[in-house]
Amino acid sequence: MEDCDFGDSDFNVNIAVVGMGLIGGSYAMALKALNPRCIVGIDKDKKTLNEALDMGIIDMAYESGGRFLKKIDLIIIALYPKDTVKFVKDNLQNLKRGVLITDASSVKEYVVSSINLFLPEYMEFVPGHPMAGRESKGIELASADIFKKANYIITPSSRNTPKGLNMIDKMARKIGCSNVTYVSPEEHDNVIAFTSQLPHVAAVSLMNSYDENSINNMELFIGGSFRDATRVAQINSKLWSQLFIMNSDKLVDEIEKFQKSIDELKMAVIYKDVNKIDDIFENAVHRRKDIVKRQG
Amino acid sequence: MEDCDFGDSDFNVNIAVVGMGLIGGSYAMALKALNPRCIVGIDKDKKTLNEALDMGIIDMAYESGGRFLKKIDLIIIALYPKDTVKFVKDNLQNLKRGVLITDASSVKEYVVSSINLFLPEYMEFVPGHPMAGRESKGIELASADIFKKANYIITPSSRNTPKGLNMIDKMARKIGCSNVTYVSPEEHDNVIAFTSQLPHVAAVSLMNSYDENSINNMELFIGGSFRDATRVAQINSKLWSQLFIMNSDKLVDEIEKFQKSIDELKMAVIYKDVNKIDDIFENAVHRRKDIVKRQG
Repeated sequence: MEDCDFGDSDFNVNIAVVGMGLIGGSYAMALKALNPRCIVGIDKDKKTLNEALDMGIIDMAYESGGRFLKKIDLIIIALYPKDTVKFVKDNLQNLKRGVLITDASSVKEYVVSSINLFLPEYMEFVPGHPMAGRESKGIELASADIFKKANYIITPSSRNTPKGLNMIDKMARKIGCSNVTYVSPEEHDNVIAFTSQLPHVAAVSLMNSYDENSINNMELFIGGSFRDATRVAQINSKLWSQLFIMNSDKLVDEIEKFQKSIDELKMAVIYKDVNKIDDIFENAVHRRKDIVKRQG
Repeated sequence: MEDCDFGDSDFNVNIAVVGMGLIGGSYAMALKALNPRCIVGIDKDKKTLNEALDMGIIDMAYESGGRFLKKIDLIIIALYPKDTVKFVKDNLQNLKRGVLITDASSVKEYVVSSINLFLPEYMEFVPGHPMAGRESKGIELASADIFKKANYIITPSSRNTPKGLNMIDKMARKIGCSNVTYVSPEEHDNVIAFTSQLPHVAAVSLMNSYDENSINNMELFIGGSFRDATRVAQINSKLWSQLFIMNSDKLVDEIEKFQKSIDELKMAVIYKDVNKIDDIFENAVHRRKDIVKRQG
């Protein structure tokens, strides 16, 4: 870490960000602004690392873990869930005693239970999920702004200490998240099946449901509702297929409730039951207004 | 029209906007900027009219049609479909010979066939659909900006003249729409069932599909995907129930294709078929990128 600035800072630690894609790149940007002692980027892709160095959001770059990790106090892993677990496992010998590790996975049961199986007592893993992202991937889309006013969820296990939780809570708020919420990994995965995975199911299915031969020049018939509803259809396939499969039971439950809800509206349209359609719409209006209100 | 400015203008005609809600209010704003000879607002709600007068987007206000319409060259009706037809029918005796009428309905077969039944030859109705809007209603949300780069669709009938079509085409472009597309009313209603009505079905059904007792503080688990997917769930119930019922057959077809598409993804998740899920995702990515590209 010879190249690093050892000056005073609110966040005066050595940080490593693992995976410099959209989320990892955004973390590096947001954390760099906190003036850490040193920030290291790890990514298997050299081009990505060079870009991160050029952008000045990391001080040093590595293509994989290694002994340099002995000096790192805080590791943020922004990889797919399986790779997150693998990175910790593969680097156990390289990690500093007392290291604090967090992640950004949007499924938590798998990650928490897997890592807790092999992580020694003198290291701490605080599972984190910043509810931030964009519809596409890659460091070129990274921005510290994605965390602004975002929700941040921590899913503690019995292995966590107040000190460790406090550090990640503080980090989440410092990078701009407005709410930090604590729930169990199971509850997290339950809720996320609805609030995050199901909207992706809807967007992808909307995008795939029309007959390309029957609609010409569809772009000329599009308004805001279609654009918004399908934004996340431009999905990171490899990541999201892993997320869906890891949370399949909970997701299937939510899909089935969604299907029931669509069926109810469809039947009301078939029977031209204006009162029923109105009721369904008013329920949706009421629910959405309520959520918007509670978000403040 | 004594109070009106008779000065020169590119759009040197007397205009009436009927229905001063979100769409009508936005029309008045956008048209006022074109410096018409005079612009009149018609709305049954006095408060709305006073607001429009205070905003300076209309020169005169009326609570209903009447003999003053004899001086109006161009009428833009921004009412629900049934009220659109009713306004023309009820005011036939008041309309100027040679008047040009357009509307903003998002279902066209009903409106065109109904109005063509009774409109005299010496009046012209050019059916128009600006693909612009917001998730809520009312003049307080009106803005000329909603038309910026929006799609505008004209659904001509055999009754239309080149002059009439040209005038509405010119108006659409002058208020900021970037594409003006001509299709039959039937084709319009077919495509719109998918590009506009189905996203509303998805948003409303998403919003209604969760069990309120099972998720506490849902607002803390929401990210951009949920916010975007449910934006239009804050729907104008009375308007959209009418639109859905008027286009029910076409909409039900689209809902069923959507259901098939959801089912396919659900089965792949149930069987944890990663290749199938990837294929489904990649198809959606490809389709959406293609549309975004064609939109330019």
